[in-house]
Amino acid sequence: MPELFQVVTVDVANQRLGEHLAPLQRVEHVALLDALDRTTAQDLHSPAPLPAFARSTMDGFAVRAADTYGASEGLPAYLTLIGEAPMGRPPDLVVGSGEAVRVHTGGMLPAGSDAVVMVENTQALDARMIEVVRPVAIGENVIPIGEDVAPGALLFPRGHRLRPQDIGGLAGVGLASVPVAARPRVAILATGDEVVPAEQEPQPGQIRDINTYTVATIIKRAGGVPLPAGIAPDDIDLLRRMARAALAEADMLLISAGSSVSTRDMTAQVIGELGQPGVLVHGVSIHPGKPTILAVADGQPVFGLPGNPVSTLVACDLFVAPALRQLLGSAPLPPWQMVQARLTHNVASIPGREDFVPVRLETRADGLWAEPIFGKSNLIYTVAHADGMLHVPLDRAGLYANDPVAIRLF
Amino acid sequence: MPELFQVVTVDVANQRLGEHLAPLQRVEHVALLDALDRTTAQDLHSPAPLPAFARSTMDGFAVRAADTYGASEGLPAYLTLIGEAPMGRPPDLVVGSGEAVRVHTGGMLPAGSDAVVMVENTQALDARMIEVVRPVAIGENVIPIGEDVAPGALLFPRGHRLRPQDIGGLAGVGLASVPVAARPRVAILATGDEVVPAEQEPQPGQIRDINTYTVATIIKRAGGVPLPAGIAPDDIDLLRRMARAALAEADMLLISAGSSVSTRDMTAQVIGELGQPGVLVHGVSIHPGKPTILAVADGQPVFGLPGNPVSTLVACDLFVAPALRQLLGSAPLPPWQMVQARLTHNVASIPGREDFVPVRLETRADGLWAEPIFGKSNLIYTVAHADGMLHVPLDRAGLYANDPVAIRLF
Repeated sequence: MPELFQVVTVDVANQRLGEHLAPLQRVEHVALLDALDRTTAQDLHSPAPLPAFARSTMDGFAVRAADTYGASEGLPAYLTLIGEAPMGRPPDLVVGSGEAVRVHTGGMLPAGSDAVVMVENTQALDARMIEVVRPVAIGENVIPIGEDVAPGALLFPRGHRLRPQDIGGLAGVGLASVPVAARPRVAILATGDEVVPAEQEPQPGQIRDINTYTVATIIKRAGGVPLPAGIAPDDIDLLRRMARAALAEADMLLISAGSSVSTRDMTAQVIGELGQPGVLVHGVSIHPGKPTILAVADGQPVFGLPGNPVSTLVACDLFVAPALRQLLGSAPLPPWQMVQARLTHNVASIPGREDFVPVRLETRADGLWAEPIFGKSNLIYTVAHADGMLHVPLDRAGLYANDPVAIRLF
Repeated sequence: MPELFQVVTVDVANQRLGEHLAPLQRVEHVALLDALDRTTAQDLHSPAPLPAFARSTMDGFAVRAADTYGASEGLPAYLTLIGEAPMGRPPDLVVGSGEAVRVHTGGMLPAGSDAVVMVENTQALDARMIEVVRPVAIGENVIPIGEDVAPGALLFPRGHRLRPQDIGGLAGVGLASVPVAARPRVAILATGDEVVPAEQEPQPGQIRDINTYTVATIIKRAGGVPLPAGIAPDDIDLLRRMARAALAEADMLLISAGSSVSTRDMTAQVIGELGQPGVLVHGVSIHPGKPTILAVADGQPVFGLPGNPVSTLVACDLFVAPALRQLLGSAPLPPWQMVQARLTHNVASIPGREDFVPVRLETRADGLWAEPIFGKSNLIYTVAHADGMLHVPLDRAGLYANDPVAIRLF
């Protein structure tokens, strides 16, 4: 018999599970162009300064700044042009007092110079002499060595998910291969005598598996490798055998529990037997998604997901994706990934539970509006036709039309 | 000689380019689990109703609703239990007047029944007889055929980017293979005598290629296939030859222009010669990113991107990603993908240009705050250490501390 569990809040549920989870210790080294959206497996420090030499930020002339002090349209400084700095190799010229060298944007400053005069602030008198009509300070129009990154500087902490500009930054300091956390393998087991794979033609009374496809792609997006493990019939011995086999190949197991009470009890029992400490949470104060199960089997997280498609989406967002981030050693999602909108209709809720309602978003002249989609949580197209999810907090008995609300985008 | 172009606004630039672009006509059929983030290549209609049979949403008893009318705790309705509906196949029972059949959540309703009484509202008198203490209406606790999706209904229009719940929805109606737009191939050509690949040890005066890596991963994220095409030296004949070869293999070409005026002019000239109508925009009223080039060569979009890493990021976001969406036949990004924050410091700008400033975000007790990162646009780590980009509109001379602002998240 399953134990009787008390319904807990989302925070309590995640805290109970989180205490048992630790980042996986598997590290992969991937080429830069394959590192997008991967999570760094260690602090990355710069092996070199960027730039490695002082560079001009302008087309102009490398000079000694002191030679330009006081220069103006009426009283220009006259400098002798001794040559041009090449791109891609060090200039073999030395700028002496009263001398200038032509430089291009990005070019290396010649020895002796300490500033660059923009070409717009000069006039060529002849091939050997220029007038400078505005003074420059030391370092003006120059990127000094290490201004972008100092050698040894922390580029990204461990657990950082790499974005395009981060990949560019790593290229800049020559980290052409990056140590990233291996993608956690997540086994997904569907259940139910009535469930058949999507590609199969269902007979009367049968339905196609929806949750395996939704969950697998959520896992992919969150940085894991989904391992669909088939569909278990409503038979506890078979379910137990399939769950054990799936977990043995994976870092995490998701069982899409059946929707009836008897199959949910069976799922809870099987999950409880998979390893220690077993079921930590059975029932969360959310709607939809209340019958979610959070468990740990000998260090591996195991979830019993509600059978309904919308409940599954909510449970994955609230519990599965954060657990996956913990296995990746990745920081929690920043709290600002929500958009603010105003509500078009009243939304009822019950104090003491968090409600999640799919919404359509609409930009009107006076801002962004969220229109709730009141569908049953067993209809997948209520979320397939939504732009995001409205969250009704635990302590509210509902929200009113015109209330400002936060929406998590899909 | 390059023509003299006038600086135009972002909207004008995109409009000029957009008029010449059309969705690519290449379609691929991919398995559902590979369809995440792909773009539908045609309107998808449902081949079947979902569900295909009337299903119970509760554990309980299938009945004729009329038999329960007026039932209460004090005056229950008595029904004869004639059996149990199996999961996964049609029940062979017919519910007659005064009869009930046990059903599980998700199970198929037996013929003759038109509603389900929740088990909580019944009491078993013996193995053959139940009491019903609350009436049900016709259709109560039942999902009728096609409630989720009617046969022939539009599931997703052409140009829809598929999310996890959409993949689940397609599974539900048996669309196990999806027609999606082929990923546009985007050639990326770096330029500059001073630029070497990231894995190469630069000599004095040389710098590693940053932009190819940033741009390639932006393209990947936007749904294209990046094709790095090497680094062209500052030699117009070689640049021309490499640009032609790269464009011949691709649907779009990005040339990361050098940062000096002379190499930018060279890039503009080569782009202008690639095909008709040639350069459409040379210079946009943005900072950073002003020297961006938008062109079309015989139907293929070609971009000259500014050499600076931050400018490149801005130009890709404003021009390249929207063009890629056009090739995919995908709708423009919805306008609500920005978060609202308040500004920690004044930000100066110049009326008549749009400014983009990297910001760090911070959640404080009174909401979300954006702290501008005032770095030079040639420092990649100003964006690598940012959470998003602040936009200063065209008509503003700057923004003040405490102003509400919209931030595009990275």
